[in-house]
Amino acid sequence: MTNPITQFRGGDHGPWQVVNRRHLTGPAIPAFDRLAIGPEQPGPAPWQARGFNSNLRYTTARERSELLANGAPADRGDQCAVLIPMSKNAAWWALAQDERLAIYARARHMRIGMTVLPAVSRTLFHGRDLGEPFDFLTWFEFAPSDEPAFDAMLAQLRASEEWDYVSAESEIRLRR
Amino acid sequence: MTNPITQFRGGDHGPWQVVNRRHLTGPAIPAFDRLAIGPEQPGPAPWQARGFNSNLRYTTARERSELLANGAPADRGDQCAVLIPMSKNAAWWALAQDERLAIYARARHMRIGMTVLPAVSRTLFHGRDLGEPFDFLTWFEFAPSDEPAFDAMLAQLRASEEWDYVSAESEIRLRR
Repeated sequence: MTNPITQFRGGDHGPWQVVNRRHLTGPAIPAFDRLAIGPEQPGPAPWQARGFNSNLRYTTARERSELLANGAPADRGDQCAVLIPMSKNAAWWALAQDERLAIYARARHMRIGMTVLPAVSRTLFHGRDLGEPFDFLTWFEFAPSDEPAFDAMLAQLRASEEWDYVSAESEIRLRR
Repeated sequence: MTNPITQFRGGDHGPWQVVNRRHLTGPAIPAFDRLAIGPEQPGPAPWQARGFNSNLRYTTARERSELLANGAPADRGDQCAVLIPMSKNAAWWALAQDERLAIYARARHMRIGMTVLPAVSRTLFHGRDLGEPFDFLTWFEFAPSDEPAFDAMLAQLRASEEWDYVSAESEIRLRR
């Protein structure tokens, strides 16, 4: 049995240096200078968060085909990364699957995200089912020249109906 | 942070006595006499499996309303229980959400399950994202007189298209 849980550890160590941090909603996270990502490690850290990558939950077959055709390869060595720890509220989690799918469709979540492919790679980690403070940890990587496109994409998503359900959100920008 | 993971421990202890076991597909699980269910415990056990209860993944708003109206209360003190550890194959997990929803609809999964409400209570635990051998641990409770209805429901589900994707399945029947 392999442990599929990934841990983000913020502190004095790690290959990623924090260059900017922003607190948007809900509980803030403590400041740290560097970030390491890997399997779960014992022992305390100034900040840590865990999650698992999982199967696709809302993606249709058509969207999946587009993702496979235009998706960004992981571990491309991009110099910029952004970690967005986020939680959604109780109203979101009480929704039925068709209600959540309708919100994603109206918010144009997949459409907006696809506008930055393949420049921006995205990896989603789920924390809620582990009892973590953040339901999601989304990890993005891109080249410095693609940061304006990333910013525009993020602003569009945050303006959508889906964000009415966001109860906690922080943004940590890093350089390798 | 509370640990939302539930552990099933099979061995010589626990409130549930094994009265029948059946191996259907994939790797068999070792024999044990009694079963305990609770928070994760350290230390080995003759058999153990873990999972977390999560948000609804495929249930529509209409189905959820029916479940709320007819659902079985948990911890009713029913004398019979059935644990079904199960995994689905790689083809299932590679499906997009709309493809899985279509299979559930064609298999009439929710319709069939609702035929035994409120006599049979059901709790689903997810193990796949924890790296567990079984993707799902489904726990059913009912009164002895409802066992024939439970058996008929289970036979209908197993005859459906959804079961083409089942790669491992065992069935453990217990008495309190």
